[in-house]
Amino acid sequence: MSERADGFTLEEIVSRFGGELIGDGRLRILQVATLENAGPADFAFLANQKYRKQLKTSRAGAVVLSAGYARDCQLPCIISDNPYAYYARVARLLNPPRPATPGVHPAAIVETKLHPSVSVGAATFIAKDVRIGENSVIGPGCVIGEGVSLGPEALLYGNVTVYTGCMIGARTIIHSGAVIGADGFGIARDADGSWTKIPQIGRVIIGDDVEIGANTTIDRGALDDTVIEDGVKLDNQIQVGHNVRIGAHTALAGCVGIAGSARVGRRCTVGGGAIILGHLTIADDVNISAATLVTKSINQPGTYTGAMPFEPHRDWLKNAAQMRHLDAMAEKMRELEARLAQLEKKS
Amino acid sequence: MSERADGFTLEEIVSRFGGELIGDGRLRILQVATLENAGPADFAFLANQKYRKQLKTSRAGAVVLSAGYARDCQLPCIISDNPYAYYARVARLLNPPRPATPGVHPAAIVETKLHPSVSVGAATFIAKDVRIGENSVIGPGCVIGEGVSLGPEALLYGNVTVYTGCMIGARTIIHSGAVIGADGFGIARDADGSWTKIPQIGRVIIGDDVEIGANTTIDRGALDDTVIEDGVKLDNQIQVGHNVRIGAHTALAGCVGIAGSARVGRRCTVGGGAIILGHLTIADDVNISAATLVTKSINQPGTYTGAMPFEPHRDWLKNAAQMRHLDAMAEKMRELEARLAQLEKKS
Amino acid sequence: MSERADGFTLEEIVSRFGGELIGDGRLRILQVATLENAGPADFAFLANQKYRKQLKTSRAGAVVLSAGYARDCQLPCIISDNPYAYYARVARLLNPPRPATPGVHPAAIVETKLHPSVSVGAATFIAKDVRIGENSVIGPGCVIGEGVSLGPEALLYGNVTVYTGCMIGARTIIHSGAVIGADGFGIARDADGSWTKIPQIGRVIIGDDVEIGANTTIDRGALDDTVIEDGVKLDNQIQVGHNVRIGAHTALAGCVGIAGSARVGRRCTVGGGAIILGHLTIADDVNISAATLVTKSINQPGTYTGAMPFEPHRDWLKNAAQMRHLDAMAEKMRELEARLAQLEKKS
Repeated sequence: MSERADGFTLEEIVSRFGGELIGDGRLRILQVATLENAGPADFAFLANQKYRKQLKTSRAGAVVLSAGYARDCQLPCIISDNPYAYYARVARLLNPPRPATPGVHPAAIVETKLHPSVSVGAATFIAKDVRIGENSVIGPGCVIGEGVSLGPEALLYGNVTVYTGCMIGARTIIHSGAVIGADGFGIARDADGSWTKIPQIGRVIIGDDVEIGANTTIDRGALDDTVIEDGVKLDNQIQVGHNVRIGAHTALAGCVGIAGSARVGRRCTVGGGAIILGHLTIADDVNISAATLVTKSINQPGTYTGAMPFEPHRDWLKNAAQMRHLDAMAEKMRELEARLAQLEKKS
Repeated sequence: MSERADGFTLEEIVSRFGGELIGDGRLRILQVATLENAGPADFAFLANQKYRKQLKTSRAGAVVLSAGYARDCQLPCIISDNPYAYYARVARLLNPPRPATPGVHPAAIVETKLHPSVSVGAATFIAKDVRIGENSVIGPGCVIGEGVSLGPEALLYGNVTVYTGCMIGARTIIHSGAVIGADGFGIARDADGSWTKIPQIGRVIIGDDVEIGANTTIDRGALDDTVIEDGVKLDNQIQVGHNVRIGAHTALAGCVGIAGSARVGRRCTVGGGAIILGHLTIADDVNISAATLVTKSINQPGTYTGAMPFEPHRDWLKNAAQMRHLDAMAEKMRELEARLAQLEKKS
Repeated sequence: MSERADGFTLEEIVSRFGGELIGDGRLRILQVATLENAGPADFAFLANQKYRKQLKTSRAGAVVLSAGYARDCQLPCIISDNPYAYYARVARLLNPPRPATPGVHPAAIVETKLHPSVSVGAATFIAKDVRIGENSVIGPGCVIGEGVSLGPEALLYGNVTVYTGCMIGARTIIHSGAVIGADGFGIARDADGSWTKIPQIGRVIIGDDVEIGANTTIDRGALDDTVIEDGVKLDNQIQVGHNVRIGAHTALAGCVGIAGSARVGRRCTVGGGAIILGHLTIADDVNISAATLVTKSINQPGTYTGAMPFEPHRDWLKNAAQMRHLDAMAEKMRELEARLAQLEKKS
């Protein structure tokens, strides 16, 4: 799906994106590929030390890599400080988004007047008073509630749901099955143990250039809004509770859960399956490791981890049994030390 | 979206919901808000100690709080034993559900005769032999299988799926992307390692006043039914396996997983990301902390926890390394104690 | 929903599926049921030691069990090496899939010519150039992207989404809300902390006889394909990242997450809520316990575990506090041992 059937030469690529070219600039690149599977018209990258050995056997047309690996590379190459980001740009150049057909599919149900450049898929329902920016694409099977606003060039894949009143920025991508703006988990317990539901009257406000993965859910605010700032990237199956605020350019891997009213800083990363409890504040530039439970605020940038190491089950059985005795073990250690000190004094 | 454009006076509120009023009962309340953002016609609450300082700077019209905080409050206030539940009631009074348009949208596909008070959204499919109680609302894009029954005043948001034969009680709310009644994970392993699928012929039975969050899944029973009792509240992205039974008024936070045939008692709470293994029984009034793995039955009420504390990654690396040596450490401690006792005897 | 209104006799069952019959072969079986709830025309099974006591009180018509339990059983029974798989076959015999109505529902939107045996539900959108094998069933509300291919006898329930170009094998079942082929989480970080999206140009390739649970997501490959081999069984709410490969007959329980480029072997099992990090290799016949985080490759078959035991919260508070001191504790122990050795030398 290349912009040009004959691709781009290495010279053209370097003149667009910079970097130092080693090799013949007239070589034509048609597509990107992994080192392992690339052919002579493909552009590959080396960004993970693990795949370094593949440099020797790769049949790629050219490779982008950092200066340190250049001497291992017999292929034409481009040297870059950030080979992965460089590769990303080449991949985008060679794989521009497919243009969608503008206009409303005859099987869509649209109760708002839309700009003719907007594309709406079959079986999608768009309620009243929705504003959608130019060149946005709404896939089939979506439900867009009353009063929703979408910026220009937004892209919603099929079967996305956006509840009433939510606001979504320019160029934001939302994948299938995502649900934006469902009620937060606001319930108050009565004396008899039953719950009273609290109306959730806030909205979800999503900035520009955000990407939201498949089946991710972002709840509307209870009173104030839930806010996802510009450039945030959310993987699949993430749950974002009501009144959470996620700072610009933060990226969350799959299956993360963030409880209500937590505030996550800018440029943070959160590994898969991590859980962040409610009403916490996490500073800018914090990295949370996968499967970590964050139980209190983090005020300093850095990497934080709380996962349990895995091991063969029979070993785990023995070690895990001791975890319930750690406090007793510490106490015993103090006792032994005291007895030892006693003996040392005597001797 | 207030029931009355001019809201309610504090006197009217106290006469409906009780509590002790301090201040001018003629003050009109139009909306609820957080202490931080409330204006003079807003009703706020203090239920979390963390926000106590905001009492001093809040511009709220009135605040509900417990007796202990009343002296810190210069604003008109209502004293209640349970300020959060009180606030919930006021919020509901001021934000009644928006009435849906009764009737079937012309772009819905409905193969059952429905009561004229029922509202069905566009692109929703309702199969044969479905019974839907009066005043229920089915949003757009839903799929309601054959023989499903819904109680009166049920509310399904867009893109909800309910499989054949499931029963859902009165006033139950189901959010977008939820899937009720998919097959349980019933597979039997053959000698060659392949699996035979077991037909899942039970149903899902959901009681009255249940709320089910976005993208939550509840599997149908293998043979008997999966049962969600009255007043249960499920947050988003929860997985409930086949033949699970969840007792009345139990509340589960987001991303919880409950494996097949587990029985969770009444009035329990389960924190986000917790996993409950199959074929277990959990007593009434048990609280499971976030991210806890429950591996055996719990017979006593109380709070149970199994999460690993998080810490800076460099500290974690050192501490985690020892977790694989806990059994050896315990053994070494016993050895040291024996040697110490030996010395003590001699001295 | 029995294939035959009068069911099957035990003799007929044994002649189809083998096993040793004890009791009257003329007994007619109409349905399967649990030991607890079975009546005299029901066929039950004993596969979990936990339910052994129910043999005495069960009113089942017949039971399949292993030789070791036969003497505890007064009911007609069939002895099998693998009672659960035997029961699965009987359950399938008595509960064949309901035949779907062939043809395209008038409210479906189909842009491809399909074989007349294919069934397509209302409000489903099927794009151009889709190939669907004979006797496949696509439920209502689905979105099937351009160029998708499905094998014969595939079954997609309502509200399933399959992105452009993905390939799905014969007899594969996909439950509601599943999303196949959304973009992988491919983003490259720039110097200013913002992210560049990397086009995801691979596909998802799913083999034959796979089952995919409700709201499970499988991302398309970044460059090469994401591959799910034959006979794999995925429960609900699972996230499979881009370029993952899952070997034949591997089964994953609910809420599992597998990060990009991980390779899971054949005949593995993964317990609920486990997380497998990216770029790892897991050998054939590995069992990962529930809630375990797999942080490195596993080369040997066996069972691996990394979960933290749970306990009453007050005990956990004390034990968890020590987890942050394990390294210090190990150091202290070495010190005590050295001092002890010193004393021992003297004495």
